[in-house]
Amino acid sequence: MASLTYRLFHHPLDPFSRRVRLALAEKALTCTFVVEKPWSPSTELITLNASCEVPVLTVAEGKDRVALVGAQPISEYLDETNAAPSLLGKDPYLRAEVRRLVDWFDRKFYSEVSVLLSGEKIWKRLKGEGEPDSSAIRAGCQNIHGHLNYIAWLTERRNWLAGDEISFADLAAGAQLSVIDYLGDVPWNSHVLAKEWYARLKSRPSFRTLLGDHLAGFMPPRHYADLDF
Amino acid sequence: MASLTYRLFHHPLDPFSRRVRLALAEKALTCTFVVEKPWSPSTELITLNASCEVPVLTVAEGKDRVALVGAQPISEYLDETNAAPSLLGKDPYLRAEVRRLVDWFDRKFYSEVSVLLSGEKIWKRLKGEGEPDSSAIRAGCQNIHGHLNYIAWLTERRNWLAGDEISFADLAAGAQLSVIDYLGDVPWNSHVLAKEWYARLKSRPSFRTLLGDHLAGFMPPRHYADLDF
Repeated sequence: MASLTYRLFHHPLDPFSRRVRLALAEKALTCTFVVEKPWSPSTELITLNASCEVPVLTVAEGKDRVALVGAQPISEYLDETNAAPSLLGKDPYLRAEVRRLVDWFDRKFYSEVSVLLSGEKIWKRLKGEGEPDSSAIRAGCQNIHGHLNYIAWLTERRNWLAGDEISFADLAAGAQLSVIDYLGDVPWNSHVLAKEWYARLKSRPSFRTLLGDHLAGFMPPRHYADLDF
Repeated sequence: MASLTYRLFHHPLDPFSRRVRLALAEKALTCTFVVEKPWSPSTELITLNASCEVPVLTVAEGKDRVALVGAQPISEYLDETNAAPSLLGKDPYLRAEVRRLVDWFDRKFYSEVSVLLSGEKIWKRLKGEGEPDSSAIRAGCQNIHGHLNYIAWLTERRNWLAGDEISFADLAAGAQLSVIDYLGDVPWNSHVLAKEWYARLKSRPSFRTLLGDHLAGFMPPRHYADLDF
């Protein structure tokens, strides 16, 4: 598989794109990154994915190129086609647990927290859809506590979220939280155990790529890139 | 794996539960079915899945029992642990395409059609949350056309939605559509190619279990169980 060339079409503050960037870095894969604005897609993105959503990973071998769409299909592909370490887990039951938690953060955390906080504060502004809805922001700030408590509950019982080893579950949770942290909206000081888990994740080399992101007009708080936050 | 005992906690009109029931039947696996009302969960469901969502599949071997949560984790598990036919596909690129389409129907079709039609007409009534919102129903009836056109586009190019063989993509699409069809809200006559694909799916033995569902207070239209609709 050494002759494969990867290109990732992504947005720096899209949590699903971030999840794939973390997976690529954990797998130590070389990749070219193409920033897309999904609400104003390039002709190439439209060709690759008619729904214009990111992330899209193209895999080229010589003249052949295949486009893979979506964080979970791309993640599963990267795990299937690249050697250890597996980010899915060793046995079918562990893999089911990893996938359950990935779905938890991709779907529940995303709809209960990300859509309400980064959706209102970042995406509405980028898309020119008006002012943030303060009641949505309040609900997002409320909902995040349950998810941080759940992370604490898991890490009291396991080394990483799904088991002994780091997995796509940690990357999915970390990717969603990293965008909220870019906004300075994660109440870390009320959630010591979740903070400890996030500090371990943040100190991994794979996380460096996310910590260097700066989007014009949206400055992250000082602690965002600080490993000792 | 012959000594494994499966129990599925599900709701008859939940599309994600239906997707797992189809997968179990395609794999010819014997399973006990336990009907749950996720909005009023049994003590057992709460123990198995704190979020009280269905489907949950328990797998028991002797005294050991493991609970697997969610349609996609369960589907992947069933494919990993059971021999042919694979419902994921033979190579990593095909599997990425299957998973992309599964996500399309689980997430896009679900939010753009299922939530607006079955959410308003079935779940609101079951949960006692008041009258259906007619503007939501109009939007769902509008949105379904795009999805049926997409199914037609795919089946003009492929035998089944993702490729030559039936896959989880067909089961995911069929499961969502079967609930809308139970309401009589699929405009089949305007979508001949999608109807042909659905007729092939509906005539498979695995589909019989869904066609026999009758929920008190919600009678399906006469064509629902008719293979020649």
